[in-house]
Amino acid sequence: MRIASYATQAGPSFGIVTPDGIVDLGRRTPHADISAALAAGALPDLVAHAAAAPDFALADVTLLPAVPSPLRKVLCVGLNYRAHVAESAGREVPENPRIFARLADTIIAHGAPLWRPVNSTHFDYEGELAVVIGRPGRRIPAAQVLDHVAAYTIFNDGSLRDYQKHSVTAGKNFPSTGPLGPWLVTADEIPDPAALTLETRVNGERRQHTRTSDMILSVPELIEYISAFTSLSPGDVIATGTPEGVAHARKPPPWLKPGDVVEVEISGIGILRNPVVAEPA
Amino acid sequence: MRIASYATQAGPSFGIVTPDGIVDLGRRTPHADISAALAAGALPDLVAHAAAAPDFALADVTLLPAVPSPLRKVLCVGLNYRAHVAESAGREVPENPRIFARLADTIIAHGAPLWRPVNSTHFDYEGELAVVIGRPGRRIPAAQVLDHVAAYTIFNDGSLRDYQKHSVTAGKNFPSTGPLGPWLVTADEIPDPAALTLETRVNGERRQHTRTSDMILSVPELIEYISAFTSLSPGDVIATGTPEGVAHARKPPPWLKPGDVVEVEISGIGILRNPVVAEPA
Repeated sequence: MRIASYATQAGPSFGIVTPDGIVDLGRRTPHADISAALAAGALPDLVAHAAAAPDFALADVTLLPAVPSPLRKVLCVGLNYRAHVAESAGREVPENPRIFARLADTIIAHGAPLWRPVNSTHFDYEGELAVVIGRPGRRIPAAQVLDHVAAYTIFNDGSLRDYQKHSVTAGKNFPSTGPLGPWLVTADEIPDPAALTLETRVNGERRQHTRTSDMILSVPELIEYISAFTSLSPGDVIATGTPEGVAHARKPPPWLKPGDVVEVEISGIGILRNPVVAEPA
Repeated sequence: MRIASYATQAGPSFGIVTPDGIVDLGRRTPHADISAALAAGALPDLVAHAAAAPDFALADVTLLPAVPSPLRKVLCVGLNYRAHVAESAGREVPENPRIFARLADTIIAHGAPLWRPVNSTHFDYEGELAVVIGRPGRRIPAAQVLDHVAAYTIFNDGSLRDYQKHSVTAGKNFPSTGPLGPWLVTADEIPDPAALTLETRVNGERRQHTRTSDMILSVPELIEYISAFTSLSPGDVIATGTPEGVAHARKPPPWLKPGDVVEVEISGIGILRNPVVAEPA
C-alpha cells in the first residue's frame, strides 16, 4: 500500500495512492496525518479503504514530505556503503555507525525545489533508502526491528560539502535540501529491505546505482544501534546512507546547480524527483 | 527579568520569577508558553506584570525546561574554549565551529533527574551558557546578533563519551541528559554575554570554572555562523560550548553515577542543579 501526504484546497491530508487516484484517509479516519495513524496503531485498518472510489487524481494534490510536519526525529547514517567509503578521501569503514540528525525544516516533498544556498556552491545529492518507524521502541534487538518498521520511502540527503567539512550537522541542515517521498510504501510490500535497487540520476544521467544488500550495516543492525541511544516513535525516519557516485567524489565535481533535476529511484517504492533552484532571497 | 516555565495542577504555564514568588503569565497574557510569547514579539509587554502579586511560591511549581516542549532547534557548539580543546586528546582548535543538534527528548528541567543510561557508564557533565533566540533570522551579521537574542539560560550538555567517539550525535542524545534552566534571564540584564562567570560542581566539588570571555568564538560570531546554514526562530536554543574540567579529561575519569548531584552556576542567571539516577528500566 502506498500512502501519500498532501495538501488540497481543503488543507493537509493523507491517503492511499491507487492506480485510479488517491483515496483520502483524512475524511475516512479520525487521524490527522499518517504519523497520528501510525501512533494509533491504525495502519492495518487503513487497507480496508483501499477499494473505495478515489477522491482525487494524483495530479490534483500537492504532495507533502512522505512524513509531514511535525517531524520528530530524522536520523541519518554516514558511510554505510563500502564503495562510498572508498570514494570518500581519508575515510575508513567506521567501527560503529556515524549518526547525524536533520532538522525538520530541511525536509521537502517530491516535486518541491531543492534550494542551492547563496553561500555555498558545493551542493551534492545522496540517494538513500529511508525507514519509517511504526511502533515505539528503545534498545530494540535487531531480530525484532522489522516489527517496528511501518514503511519505506526514498530520501535525498542533500549536502553542502564545504560546510560538511566544518561539521556534518552544518553541511546537512541547509533549509529545503532533504526531499523525502514521493510516498510511503508499507513494509508488507518490502519483506527484505536489503533486496532493493537504488539509482540516482541528475538530468537523466545515472550517478549512483546499487543494491541495498551492499549496505555495511543492515536496516535491523542500524535501528538496533540507533535505538540504543534514543527512543524511536511512530513517524520517526531513519535514512540508511548513500552508495558511491556522489558529485564530491567526481573530478571535477558536478555540483548541483539551479536548473538541474535530481531523481532517486528505488525498486518497489518509486521515483523521488526534485528540481534545483537558487535559494530565494 | 527571570521567566520560568513550569507545571502546576492546572497544567503547564510560564511566569515571572520575583523575590516574592511567581507571577503567572499564562493567565495574564494570551500566550500559551514563552516560545509563543517570543514569537508574538510580546517580551517587552511582559514586564508590565512584574509588579503583580505573586500567584505561586517557587517551591509550589514543578519547573519545566527553560524553553519547554515543543523545542524546535537546540544547536550546540563543540570545542569553543581553548583550555577544553587542550584537555581533549587529539583535538585542535577548529577553523570553523563544530555544530551538533540535540533532540528534544534529551532536554530536562532544573531539578529533574539526569539519566545515567544502562548501556554506558561514561557519563560526563558540560556546563554551558545557552542563548535563546527572540527574533527570527537567517544570515544574521554578528553586529546584529544581540538584537535577535531574547534571553540567556544555563545548559548541561550531558555526554556519553564512549558513544560520542562513534558520533557526536549519538553521544549527546541519550534521553534526559540535557538540563536547561532553571529559568530564562532576559537579555537586558546581560548586556555582555562574554562577561559572565561559569562554574560546574559535582557533589559540591568545583570541576569547571571559567569566564565566558574565554570562548574562542563569541556569542555573536557563533550565531552569525549558525544562521548561515539554518534559520533561527523565537525559542530556538544555542549552547555555546563547555570550558575545561570535564570528567573525560581527568585521570581516572570521575564519571557521573547515580546519587551524584551536578550544579552549573552562571553569574547573573542562577544555578542549574540536577541529581543523577539510573535510567528507569
